[in-house]
Amino acid sequence: MMRLMQSRATLDRWRQLWSKSMAKSRLRALSPSSFVTDQKVRYSRNIKTESTSFVENLFNGQLEPKSLLPFPAALSPEQAQLLQAMVDPCTRFFEEVNDAAANEELGSIEEETVEGLKSMGCFGLQVPEELGGIGLTNTQYARMVEVVGMHDLGVAIALGAHQSIGFKGILLFGNKSQKEKYLPRLASGEAYAAFCLTEPSSGSDAASIQTVAELSPCGGFYTLNGSKIWISNGGTAEVFTVFAKTRIKNITTGEETDKMSAFIVERAFGGVSSGPPEQKMGIQCSNTAEVHFEDVKVPAENLLGGLGKGFQVAVHILNNGRFSMAAAMAGTMRGVLLKAVDHAADRQQFGKAIGRFGAIQEKLARMAMLLYVTEAMAYMLSANMDMKLPDYKLEAAISKIFASEAAWTVADEGIQILGGMGYMKESGMEKVMRDLRIFRIFEGTNEILRLFVALSGMEYAGHTLSGLRKDLSAPLLHLGSIYKEVVMRAKRKVGVPTGQTLQGLVHPELEDCAALVTRAVELFGETIESLLLKYGAAVTDKQFHLRRVADAAIDTYAMAVALSRASRALSLGQPTAQHEKLLCQAWCQQAFPRVRESLREVKSASWEEVFTSMKLISDALVQHRSTVASHPLGF
Amino acid sequence: MMRLMQSRATLDRWRQLWSKSMAKSRLRALSPSSFVTDQKVRYSRNIKTESTSFVENLFNGQLEPKSLLPFPAALSPEQAQLLQAMVDPCTRFFEEVNDAAANEELGSIEEETVEGLKSMGCFGLQVPEELGGIGLTNTQYARMVEVVGMHDLGVAIALGAHQSIGFKGILLFGNKSQKEKYLPRLASGEAYAAFCLTEPSSGSDAASIQTVAELSPCGGFYTLNGSKIWISNGGTAEVFTVFAKTRIKNITTGEETDKMSAFIVERAFGGVSSGPPEQKMGIQCSNTAEVHFEDVKVPAENLLGGLGKGFQVAVHILNNGRFSMAAAMAGTMRGVLLKAVDHAADRQQFGKAIGRFGAIQEKLARMAMLLYVTEAMAYMLSANMDMKLPDYKLEAAISKIFASEAAWTVADEGIQILGGMGYMKESGMEKVMRDLRIFRIFEGTNEILRLFVALSGMEYAGHTLSGLRKDLSAPLLHLGSIYKEVVMRAKRKVGVPTGQTLQGLVHPELEDCAALVTRAVELFGETIESLLLKYGAAVTDKQFHLRRVADAAIDTYAMAVALSRASRALSLGQPTAQHEKLLCQAWCQQAFPRVRESLREVKSASWEEVFTSMKLISDALVQHRSTVASHPLGF
Repeated sequence: MMRLMQSRATLDRWRQLWSKSMAKSRLRALSPSSFVTDQKVRYSRNIKTESTSFVENLFNGQLEPKSLLPFPAALSPEQAQLLQAMVDPCTRFFEEVNDAAANEELGSIEEETVEGLKSMGCFGLQVPEELGGIGLTNTQYARMVEVVGMHDLGVAIALGAHQSIGFKGILLFGNKSQKEKYLPRLASGEAYAAFCLTEPSSGSDAASIQTVAELSPCGGFYTLNGSKIWISNGGTAEVFTVFAKTRIKNITTGEETDKMSAFIVERAFGGVSSGPPEQKMGIQCSNTAEVHFEDVKVPAENLLGGLGKGFQVAVHILNNGRFSMAAAMAGTMRGVLLKAVDHAADRQQFGKAIGRFGAIQEKLARMAMLLYVTEAMAYMLSANMDMKLPDYKLEAAISKIFASEAAWTVADEGIQILGGMGYMKESGMEKVMRDLRIFRIFEGTNEILRLFVALSGMEYAGHTLSGLRKDLSAPLLHLGSIYKEVVMRAKRKVGVPTGQTLQGLVHPELEDCAALVTRAVELFGETIESLLLKYGAAVTDKQFHLRRVADAAIDTYAMAVALSRASRALSLGQPTAQHEKLLCQAWCQQAFPRVRESLREVKSASWEEVFTSMKLISDALVQHRSTVASHPLGF
Repeated sequence: MMRLMQSRATLDRWRQLWSKSMAKSRLRALSPSSFVTDQKVRYSRNIKTESTSFVENLFNGQLEPKSLLPFPAALSPEQAQLLQAMVDPCTRFFEEVNDAAANEELGSIEEETVEGLKSMGCFGLQVPEELGGIGLTNTQYARMVEVVGMHDLGVAIALGAHQSIGFKGILLFGNKSQKEKYLPRLASGEAYAAFCLTEPSSGSDAASIQTVAELSPCGGFYTLNGSKIWISNGGTAEVFTVFAKTRIKNITTGEETDKMSAFIVERAFGGVSSGPPEQKMGIQCSNTAEVHFEDVKVPAENLLGGLGKGFQVAVHILNNGRFSMAAAMAGTMRGVLLKAVDHAADRQQFGKAIGRFGAIQEKLARMAMLLYVTEAMAYMLSANMDMKLPDYKLEAAISKIFASEAAWTVADEGIQILGGMGYMKESGMEKVMRDLRIFRIFEGTNEILRLFVALSGMEYAGHTLSGLRKDLSAPLLHLGSIYKEVVMRAKRKVGVPTGQTLQGLVHPELEDCAALVTRAVELFGETIESLLLKYGAAVTDKQFHLRRVADAAIDTYAMAVALSRASRALSLGQPTAQHEKLLCQAWCQQAFPRVRESLREVKSASWEEVFTSMKLISDALVQHRSTVASHPLGF
């Protein structure tokens, strides 16, 4: 900012960059970010200059503790009591009745298990009681999902595809009669639901779907045609949330455009057919199938969330559903860690338990840290959602990325600790790994979500900067805010502490970690500013950079949630507080250098060279469709 | 060294540390390193102070290019011709006859495929022609294994367990009559061989086996009793290389001790039984089973490699067999990369091929680099072995570690690029990943091999230092060598270049990479010296440090092999030389900071704190057999 004000030329460039038209059109239009930024278009018509989100503010180099500290808790004593009464029997049910290996072998969930899940209300955990569900809050739901995720990810997917996304649209966007018509059947488990977005030619690029819904001349129904792939519960569901293109006429101009709309479709409407179950690496008891819609007559009243609002509906469902992924993964990780710990305690090699060797200790400690952070993310997110904090979508995306990768690492290390045993089906560990592999792919690949985090964050930062620009245009009116910003940016630039602090908000024993979080936020803000100044709106295409920005955001947020959780434990004097302090410290000490390194790579000239080389290497591979380099032996 | 000479006290400490008795007993006795160092005991009775190994010398901070530059080639024109004549039909065979999915479904290799492999001589590729084999060199064998690894890792394991380890002992240590008796049947594929070392209670700790072979009073046979687990080909083999404890009497003292011996055991001897095939995550067409020996009468002439030499035999077989793992993995990676490249070229999202997005480009480029390095390691190793360079065991261990982890990463990224498609069995990609998971576990887990690399390297460095100590005790006789060493160490200490260089040995266009390799070697030597001075022989227990030392060694060696390979391409003016230069540069620019960071962590006080925290965290988990930290919701 200091530099900005130093020269007229820079200021002009700045203005040009962030002038409304430019910033909006460029940062939103194009390329892989369209998935990402389209969402922003809907959500941020009136883009906030104030957000409660820790991650959004991170992009401005602002330390925003509202959603972070103290660690949010959203359970009333009654809610906690109800939940506790459910957790124990559900856990016992999964230990004693559900048989993960048998479900896998069968390719579906055993009948007895399905009946048990129904009787426990597991098909409608968040459906209001008056509509036949249990009416759980997000926090309560997360805890139940954690139990399922610990024991059988296949069942978790079948249940999650049903209620986390399958009928979530009806819950979030349905009108009274839609809810009354569908939710009771779905909540009881009488019918399964499925979420139908992905098509053969549109995965990450959800906006490019080909399925079409055409309104009848009478206006009474839509005729639906198209095919969806990889639909969880696609072969078993009776009710589908389907996304299709609809023709929309601009009343003023008469111009017609295609926009996505969402529909509630019943198999009973006729014309709905499913392919055979897909043969997958894992989650084999959960049905995955193609779903075809051929001249399906959908009553007009089954339009969900308004004509042309389909993208908004889809994105909101996915954003909303993500919190439960972190909870499921936390359960999975807990299960794996417990097995690995038992093995490390029991297995003797070289005359002692292998848990006494550093090579194993490092693995176990890392697994415990990953679990600690994942749990913190899951329950911080669900609590903030329950407390109606509006700005959680970046935290939700980060939680999904972090949890799916952390669980993958934990399962991988779990197998490694078990050695040969881990590779055998008997141990149950390899199944977990196979089940987990899909979590980094579905409901937004982690690559797309990283872009979403980086680009949404930068858009937010751009708007704050843009606001500041306005203030600068009438400096006498905004002297205070200008001065504050300019001084902070200047300090950040030369590496002087900006005065931001978490002192007083975190337990004094964790001030070292708080300082690392603060420093990470400052470095982050400084880097984003440089990046925006260097590339302007063209930053949307710099995916090598964006990946590193996202990685740094993920690591910084992970430090922050660990800090918040451990700080609470210390403040409450919980019995495991000192252990949690170690987890937090060891995590932050390792995460901070990663943040610094990711941000350094974004700005470094030598890394710019590496990026260029990698692009050239990849281009050659793709162009020649070969591995290019000649074989060491020449043939 | 400068510092050492400054004070009498330090010099004394130095002497104490490296006095023969101390260094030998401590560095070899104990803990997880016994696997590792026992081997050294056998191999380095007369420990070399001069080694041709790049990696061993790395631990002294010495740049030793003998085995590295120019990139070794060990094929005569005739050998190349023979090989080329075999590669094409074998490739076609795997494309047209072998059906990986069908083999997996069947749980064994289809009969037609087995017959085809027999007729191509694939069961005895390295057996001399006069004994019914093809008599391939290591380089030739590596290339054939690469073809198999590209198409079907299950078949690769069945063939590898047979000839890379199953009867490798007979090939390496068998006497004339043993070879003549067994190799023809094995080479033809009439009988399968298996390598029987692992037992329920001894995996990495191979020295602790319980299987016993007792010599009959008449001296005519051994009675073998014991059980082996996870034996590849265990259920199908007719001939086994079995390791068992044997009682050995010291002729002078009369004292009796147990030492391991190796035996050739036939199923036909009676008393040999196998368990059912293990159900595994992958490599399902390769048989894995328990093998039980109950009062098996093994003729005394079936002792292999001498009484009490079993450990040496086992370790030598494994060291020798490792080169083919890197070759197999290179094939696997090539197969995956080609599929991923095709997909990146074909798949359209957001209006263009996904190969045009940075997020995909970075993955493809990284996969190509990993393949490039793995191939370089595989063929450098096999060539050096063919040229009878004696010191290859650390390079072999590194190649196994690197290749198994690189292939894992490549398969994982391959699936990620294919997205949902990659998770479906149809794509064939998820099978590769399942097959690959065992490669980081078997034939020495990567954890044990990392310890092996770090400890063997440090023992070598210790001996050089020890030699220097002797010189110092008679300084007038060794003034030249002392002066050279002292100056180099002093320079290294303060970060001044030591004058070591690869100039003249590498192509001038790669001097930047050569400088990075040189700098890595210097940093490495300096770090090892600090570590040895700080911890002395107690360094054997510092597994947090040893892991990082091994990581740095692996990364440094990987840089060096990439440099050598690309340098040859440039020097020969090969058509893909400029592409290879990019691969080498992008690799070295990314690997060098990793080396620096690994070495920094070894010496840093703040990382020492992290190590302590992680140890405490792990100890608490193991002690309580729980995840310790209280749940975020309290229950």
